[in-house]
Amino acid sequence: MIIILQSDAKVADRDSLIADLKSRGYGVHLSEGVERTIIGVIGTPERDKDNLVEHFEAFPFVERVVPILKPYKLVGKPFKPAGTVINVGNVQIGGGTVCIMAGPCTVESPEMLFETARFVKAAGAHVLRGGAFKPSTSPYSFHGLGETGLKLLAEAREETGLPIITEVMDTRDVELVGKYTDIFQIGTRNMANFSLLREVGTQRKPVMLKRGWASTIEEWLQAAEYIASQGNYEIILCERGIRTFENYTRNTFDINAIAAVRELSHLPIFADPSHATGRRSLVTAVSMGAVATGADGVIVEVHPSPETAVKDGPQSLTFQQFEQLLEAIKPVVEAVGRTIAPNA
Amino acid sequence: MIIILQSDAKVADRDSLIADLKSRGYGVHLSEGVERTIIGVIGTPERDKDNLVEHFEAFPFVERVVPILKPYKLVGKPFKPAGTVINVGNVQIGGGTVCIMAGPCTVESPEMLFETARFVKAAGAHVLRGGAFKPSTSPYSFHGLGETGLKLLAEAREETGLPIITEVMDTRDVELVGKYTDIFQIGTRNMANFSLLREVGTQRKPVMLKRGWASTIEEWLQAAEYIASQGNYEIILCERGIRTFENYTRNTFDINAIAAVRELSHLPIFADPSHATGRRSLVTAVSMGAVATGADGVIVEVHPSPETAVKDGPQSLTFQQFEQLLEAIKPVVEAVGRTIAPNA
Amino acid sequence: MIIILQSDAKVADRDSLIADLKSRGYGVHLSEGVERTIIGVIGTPERDKDNLVEHFEAFPFVERVVPILKPYKLVGKPFKPAGTVINVGNVQIGGGTVCIMAGPCTVESPEMLFETARFVKAAGAHVLRGGAFKPSTSPYSFHGLGETGLKLLAEAREETGLPIITEVMDTRDVELVGKYTDIFQIGTRNMANFSLLREVGTQRKPVMLKRGWASTIEEWLQAAEYIASQGNYEIILCERGIRTFENYTRNTFDINAIAAVRELSHLPIFADPSHATGRRSLVTAVSMGAVATGADGVIVEVHPSPETAVKDGPQSLTFQQFEQLLEAIKPVVEAVGRTIAPNA
Amino acid sequence: MIIILQSDAKVADRDSLIADLKSRGYGVHLSEGVERTIIGVIGTPERDKDNLVEHFEAFPFVERVVPILKPYKLVGKPFKPAGTVINVGNVQIGGGTVCIMAGPCTVESPEMLFETARFVKAAGAHVLRGGAFKPSTSPYSFHGLGETGLKLLAEAREETGLPIITEVMDTRDVELVGKYTDIFQIGTRNMANFSLLREVGTQRKPVMLKRGWASTIEEWLQAAEYIASQGNYEIILCERGIRTFENYTRNTFDINAIAAVRELSHLPIFADPSHATGRRSLVTAVSMGAVATGADGVIVEVHPSPETAVKDGPQSLTFQQFEQLLEAIKPVVEAVGRTIAPNA
Repeated sequence: MIIILQSDAKVADRDSLIADLKSRGYGVHLSEGVERTIIGVIGTPERDKDNLVEHFEAFPFVERVVPILKPYKLVGKPFKPAGTVINVGNVQIGGGTVCIMAGPCTVESPEMLFETARFVKAAGAHVLRGGAFKPSTSPYSFHGLGETGLKLLAEAREETGLPIITEVMDTRDVELVGKYTDIFQIGTRNMANFSLLREVGTQRKPVMLKRGWASTIEEWLQAAEYIASQGNYEIILCERGIRTFENYTRNTFDINAIAAVRELSHLPIFADPSHATGRRSLVTAVSMGAVATGADGVIVEVHPSPETAVKDGPQSLTFQQFEQLLEAIKPVVEAVGRTIAPNA
Repeated sequence: MIIILQSDAKVADRDSLIADLKSRGYGVHLSEGVERTIIGVIGTPERDKDNLVEHFEAFPFVERVVPILKPYKLVGKPFKPAGTVINVGNVQIGGGTVCIMAGPCTVESPEMLFETARFVKAAGAHVLRGGAFKPSTSPYSFHGLGETGLKLLAEAREETGLPIITEVMDTRDVELVGKYTDIFQIGTRNMANFSLLREVGTQRKPVMLKRGWASTIEEWLQAAEYIASQGNYEIILCERGIRTFENYTRNTFDINAIAAVRELSHLPIFADPSHATGRRSLVTAVSMGAVATGADGVIVEVHPSPETAVKDGPQSLTFQQFEQLLEAIKPVVEAVGRTIAPNA
Repeated sequence: MIIILQSDAKVADRDSLIADLKSRGYGVHLSEGVERTIIGVIGTPERDKDNLVEHFEAFPFVERVVPILKPYKLVGKPFKPAGTVINVGNVQIGGGTVCIMAGPCTVESPEMLFETARFVKAAGAHVLRGGAFKPSTSPYSFHGLGETGLKLLAEAREETGLPIITEVMDTRDVELVGKYTDIFQIGTRNMANFSLLREVGTQRKPVMLKRGWASTIEEWLQAAEYIASQGNYEIILCERGIRTFENYTRNTFDINAIAAVRELSHLPIFADPSHATGRRSLVTAVSMGAVATGADGVIVEVHPSPETAVKDGPQSLTFQQFEQLLEAIKPVVEAVGRTIAPNA
Repeated sequence: MIIILQSDAKVADRDSLIADLKSRGYGVHLSEGVERTIIGVIGTPERDKDNLVEHFEAFPFVERVVPILKPYKLVGKPFKPAGTVINVGNVQIGGGTVCIMAGPCTVESPEMLFETARFVKAAGAHVLRGGAFKPSTSPYSFHGLGETGLKLLAEAREETGLPIITEVMDTRDVELVGKYTDIFQIGTRNMANFSLLREVGTQRKPVMLKRGWASTIEEWLQAAEYIASQGNYEIILCERGIRTFENYTRNTFDINAIAAVRELSHLPIFADPSHATGRRSLVTAVSMGAVATGADGVIVEVHPSPETAVKDGPQSLTFQQFEQLLEAIKPVVEAVGRTIAPNA
């Protein structure tokens, strides 16, 4: 941590700050420049870090505090340079494979779910997605089938052999959802729901952590750190688009983040081109880009007849389009030296 | 709702869409232009609204769906044109008064809380703020004293007579927090935590709903609609800055939103200049602007010695600065024809 | 400037960097921490500054370079702590007054211009605004009357005595516009048109520099520095809203920037609530906020019949609304201890 | 165009609006709903479009105007569905090839330019990039060698046979730059410099139009329409990242825009991963993503020793890294069924 004093800071100010640092057990490296005094703090204990930055910025004669260390540790690349590989049943996430998760936005009925599950299995998907608890901007919209939806997902898993992923939104539902799902999904709106992060952190099942639509990469990794700090290291990051001024697409897919996460973290990184674009016609092209840039997998919305979907119809692929997507990304997967594993 | 077909939509497409609408009980108003066919939908039932937009956007031959009605109702201006006034003890929120809420970011200890409570009371504040459960980007930071903090807040209320406001972050804590607080606060990170919104909606105490840092005004009003839809109409909106590319300030205070909410909704609207700027030196000037534009109150962070604050020190006012703020806004309050009520 | 090396930087790397610094004439302050080596650079010559940051960030073993000094000087507060006051004819800009600039977006015809000029003069405006060269997103829209418009503005000045402000968009037009106008306006799209900034910097007439809609406050002040660096110190900054995800308003008025500029710079700072909101119904409330926060003036669009305006009709005030705005801000101006000078 | 009236609009309002429309020669399609009156406008002449939207939004009883047609025509996909292919010497831009443009940010000296030109030619680049006129946020930074730089670029072309691309920033320089360059580059800061767009529109050389860092895809296509409207149809679009809240990278590369432009326009679309990331370590991965998503080429910064670069060192590739980039994208280019043409 480096503390930069204001140009008119007095010697007494400086000394009081140094005394404060020493009383906390830190070493001090003083640099008196022509225009500014700069204090290097030596030996910052990891867990105090965040508060110290604010603490010293609160001094009236301090201009700025520059943190040096990254604000996360367990999910940082140096913690596990070889990269995390997660196994869910026979499915490998991370490592040299590209994993395909697909299914409807929402579990609407047994028929549509089973039809979709069978189809995506036959087409080559590795994991079945589907929402039983759904966030919805309007209080009057459909909020999912709840436990009934979870049971249907479990039945679909029985039939197809595909592991399932589904969202949990409420700390009170973690146990219930955990009875059925193979992978917890934390949605974009809950990336900074710290109670929920801690709760899934105490579970022993993998968690897909979607990026908050207005969260920086660093905040996202800190959210992952919450989960890891509770002992659950099986975290899959998922870039799903951020909110910007652009309005042709529903969100802006931050493909830089795919490459950045690969250099900052050891966790697998997925892309969700359905939410990142909001437009079915762009999903395949953006999936190809995500895989070429280094994504470990994609999660896409597929629906037997998107125009009857309860939610996310405009961005859901038809069965035929999903087959085309798989066909289109295969050569890209190979071009980057990866493989799509068989799903049986 | 208006449905605009793509330029190459076929007659059969159009007819299938019209049949779909009619089967749902809507009237149809067809307009065949030179370049586009446009279908006006007549009689949309309020509660279906959201899903219908997505439903029809999912048709491959539909270019765009334009909703006509606002996606909220209970919190909209026409529902209560005179405006909502909320009474908490002797304190009036909304109407012609400007209400001052002040206190520390976090309840750190009995001493600092009582000292602050006494001071802000003496200076003229109407409500005491203070966090017992604190969201924190880092899992290693301080997360608040929990119930101990709530008890201290209640004691401070006993002593000063000031009603209290404190944040609730977890559905499981709503009952506990409700035992102590006078006003629930929903923080920016939980604006779209729909489970939590519904839970406080079932309570019979006022709720301050902070705007999500990346939420539009319309989404914010829909979040308020969640609370209202459960029967709790005592909602105070609070603009606390949105996330933009600007980085000199912690957030960008969207003062347009103050004026916009006043024309769109009947709910009282507050400003939080502490979080909106992140810089103590800007808090008073921005408070003055907020009040001049029409805010019904401000909520600010005050700390006996900001440089020792556990959190938000850089944006916390000293006691002296808080007095100056009150002095500075008084003439502005009068200039806009409002009053600051005495706080005893 | 502080240079932070990567955790795996080698001693030889460090030494090569230090040698580079010394060869450029800088002193070096070395701080070897437990986790990082940090190099403080002493004596950075002002004019090299920008390039040095990039220069050292380009070293593969450098993690980050932290500049210490502000990247502008002539427009910074310390350069002229008392604040700049600009006189245009009898009109004072800056100091204790609040100055009102008003007029149509575009000079459409002699009739509408003269009618508007007479009205805003009678109502109390100090400066007449009007566009002769208009930026327009579509190539097929109206682009202004050009020199004819300038002549009409000059005639309106003759008749009313109001100084005029008009936009210049092309380096080739600076001389022509300068023949007529009293104040040059640089529009938001040209804030980073450095050729144009330099060109108006060589003129001896005041320049209003609107903030780029996606420019930080620091970049804006650097743009002002361009003008000042050519010898023209009579610069008026104008916040006109920035581009964000919010779409109820045309832009997001960054009122923090009003307060921030007042602490960072000695230049007068104006607000343009017409562009900042894009909605006539919000213009007065936001003007009041801007003045309360410390704006030295406002510039608003007024039109005899906004619904026939060639451009910016939705945000133009009617004559009656402009009178109401003036009435509404007067008590706010007084509340902050300023005055609106008589305009004759 | 559809005009939605406010819920309290009167019949007389409606009729005055219809009369206005009819007087302008439009047909009217009236739809009286339960809650709103909606007026469909039939036969909007293309060139009036923009102004009509604002015109009708300015009516006090109009809630919203919804334009139906796209605000560009010449650059829209339907105008040339087969796609534009541009030939510059032997180099083909667009069609089934992927074109590589490379070179230093700035022409610094003959030696570094020729060394880089020879290298990128040998490595397989098709076009040499290099700046002679440089935009720079600070007035005190290096602004390029001007005509000397242009001459050096022309010499490098002589020696290597590579066509050149260089930026023009000032309308007064278009003729001069045109004497030397093969392709004009319009930088991000000038995307909405309409005078400059018109000026290069009158030239008969291709123009690369970079996207404004805060411009929507639609505004970008309208900027291209400016150029096309002057008769120059040889336009190359280039996505170079947009400004968002994310700060780990210099900009956010909007890869959705690559896919979107391919469905909206017939113009070739390039990616600039150097500016889009600002980090050398991410350039190759993002280039791979851009090509997989459908980019017709990439333009990257290469420098013999980035740590001595006058500008953009942190994002410039070394020679070795540029070779690695070409190696890495080749299989991706093939995976999407394209080719990288030989450059001799």
